[in-house]
Amino acid sequence: MSADQAKSSGRFVPSRRQFLIGGAVAGVGAAAAVGADLVLNRSSSPEAAAALNGAEIVPFYGRHQAGIADAAQAHATFIALDLLPETDRDALRRLMSILTGDAARLTQGVKALADSEPELAVVPARLTVTFGFGPEFVSRAGGNAPTWLRPLPPFSIDKLDPAFTDGDLLLQIAADDPLTVAHATRMLLKDTRSFATVRWTQAGFRRAYGSERPGTTMRNLFGQVDGTTNAQPGTEEFDRIVWAERGWLAGGTSLVLRRIRMDLDKWDRLDRGGREQSVGRTLANGAPLTGTDEFDEPDFEAKTSIGFPVIPEFSHVRRSRPDDERQRIFRRGYNYDERPAGESVSESGLLFASFQADVDAQFVPIQQRLADLDLLNEWTTPIGSAVFAVPPGCSEGGYIGETLLG
Amino acid sequence: MSADQAKSSGRFVPSRRQFLIGGAVAGVGAAAAVGADLVLNRSSSPEAAAALNGAEIVPFYGRHQAGIADAAQAHATFIALDLLPETDRDALRRLMSILTGDAARLTQGVKALADSEPELAVVPARLTVTFGFGPEFVSRAGGNAPTWLRPLPPFSIDKLDPAFTDGDLLLQIAADDPLTVAHATRMLLKDTRSFATVRWTQAGFRRAYGSERPGTTMRNLFGQVDGTTNAQPGTEEFDRIVWAERGWLAGGTSLVLRRIRMDLDKWDRLDRGGREQSVGRTLANGAPLTGTDEFDEPDFEAKTSIGFPVIPEFSHVRRSRPDDERQRIFRRGYNYDERPAGESVSESGLLFASFQADVDAQFVPIQQRLADLDLLNEWTTPIGSAVFAVPPGCSEGGYIGETLLG
Repeated sequence: MSADQAKSSGRFVPSRRQFLIGGAVAGVGAAAAVGADLVLNRSSSPEAAAALNGAEIVPFYGRHQAGIADAAQAHATFIALDLLPETDRDALRRLMSILTGDAARLTQGVKALADSEPELAVVPARLTVTFGFGPEFVSRAGGNAPTWLRPLPPFSIDKLDPAFTDGDLLLQIAADDPLTVAHATRMLLKDTRSFATVRWTQAGFRRAYGSERPGTTMRNLFGQVDGTTNAQPGTEEFDRIVWAERGWLAGGTSLVLRRIRMDLDKWDRLDRGGREQSVGRTLANGAPLTGTDEFDEPDFEAKTSIGFPVIPEFSHVRRSRPDDERQRIFRRGYNYDERPAGESVSESGLLFASFQADVDAQFVPIQQRLADLDLLNEWTTPIGSAVFAVPPGCSEGGYIGETLLG
Repeated sequence: MSADQAKSSGRFVPSRRQFLIGGAVAGVGAAAAVGADLVLNRSSSPEAAAALNGAEIVPFYGRHQAGIADAAQAHATFIALDLLPETDRDALRRLMSILTGDAARLTQGVKALADSEPELAVVPARLTVTFGFGPEFVSRAGGNAPTWLRPLPPFSIDKLDPAFTDGDLLLQIAADDPLTVAHATRMLLKDTRSFATVRWTQAGFRRAYGSERPGTTMRNLFGQVDGTTNAQPGTEEFDRIVWAERGWLAGGTSLVLRRIRMDLDKWDRLDRGGREQSVGRTLANGAPLTGTDEFDEPDFEAKTSIGFPVIPEFSHVRRSRPDDERQRIFRRGYNYDERPAGESVSESGLLFASFQADVDAQFVPIQQRLADLDLLNEWTTPIGSAVFAVPPGCSEGGYIGETLLG
């Protein structure tokens, strides 16, 4: 949609109802139309507008969906929907067309088609909307499901709550502004009302825009630098890890979302040295215990003067290290921190989100190794788990899911 | 605390436990100490550091507490505590000394005294911590309570949930970064553990730093411009509205926090003209229906060509207008948007927070008028309510509450 179209769709048409309520409706209508233009061009100079992060836009259309290779925004809400019994293949096509249209609009700072609060749509703040399909969605679409599109195998460490597990259709809605996320979430969920119900919603955060230098690896609520070994988007390595190559999923990927509760009270009882041993990295800057810089390669052979490995066998960095080159994933997780219940002073953790071309070949072996032995399991518990096939992007005029439903 | 003190308190002292766990502890300790310095001075140049909003600091000490006259940050968590039965006057003094010390540190980007995740303390992002006392706190302190320090009179529109109502001690923790708020919240709540339990926690948000030009009036989730008539901090008018003048509360104020549920689904069924009539302002830019600019004075005498008032009698802007000059409050509210339960697609509203010298003289008449007749009551319901006396600030070496407890 062009900027001109956006402006013209923002025009105000007085309805019969307004005349019934009374008041200077015609005058108000004109003022509102002028106001909308002011809002859409709120800065007095183009330079000032360009300088606002709120005005930053991530392109919606493309070979891949947005929200995967883009630098993680400060806020994300993940929503899983359950399809209504009557939502068949045709309905799925209608649903994805409607959602695609509104996602394309909202991410560009344009109001949704039936936007009830259009003034909240004018701050995109790098908004992205990413869709994923669960097994039931693919089955109703009549498509071939990848073999990995099913609940993860049960791990001994799991204490899964159905309230945070599985789902038919996923929306990942992410932006640097929490009001933008709230508005987009509401507009998109309204689109889904005749097709599906909300199964779960999980909201997370990272450092705000402007808090740190761009590119700083995130810290989780344990204070750990989290995500150092991620491949860099734009590299061949990243493409190999993330993008699927075959069938309707070509140019797509998979999303594994695990809700990992972190027991901060118990973590508090561990001293700093113990924490660094459990991870295998320093807390200060995330360097491996054998190095000085965050991005130094860990030396698993190094021994202390009394013969112990410097990086313990049971440390997270050692256990999560791939056995073979294919076991790589791309992480794009968020912290969560919610109203605690009872005597606890926090209910906190990590929305572990990873993208990979093949869940079974890339994610499962790592998770299995960590479930078998990882000192961090003492302080963390997976309480939610979901797997989605993330279809490729689309061009203007197309819709997300068209390679499956078209 | 000086920067030198902060650095030296960041030093790492290996404990006996770390030797028992094994590993190159001495080496790790040295690396961690260097790392902490790097973190505390993370930018390569002072200019780069100064440019980060994350490095921005709001002074803690002063005649008034911070977090009232300061431009509202993007995120705020309000927490009410219930004092334990054994928390007497001496204990209150200890509690407030401990809390003051850690609030002073954290707001300056320095780790709390017993900070378990010191690396999360280095991004103040304009963090402020503001304390308020409920009736029980003042009673146990043996102080004279202002007559207005009690639950608000019941209003016909209220449907109060005890889970969001009243409390003995309030903490308002606000910053432009959600991770900063999460960390400060946890550190301060740990300080209170031997003295009090958490009664309720309410988290809210506004537009992010960088989303809009500074000074833009916030919009709530109805899309309304919200807070236009606020006095400007730094003016005589603001001082007269906000600061109390007598006794231990001189230089302090009061906080009324109302949790106002907004029925977005019902609001959606009202068209744009109806919405503007209910508020008396345009949605586009918040101008009164008789004006063109947000800050135009409403003209309540203006009539339409067919004789109706342009700004309806029952509109929010008309009903909330003071009867006399003293009925002014200073609003500093936040939006909330939480995981919905059941079939609703949102559980949303406003954390209405207002500061005023005298609740009975300033807040109650306005609220009574709105409860009697305000079209917005159709779509909004107060579900939580609390009143706190907000003591004045303190100097370095003092503590918040010393005028009551000292």
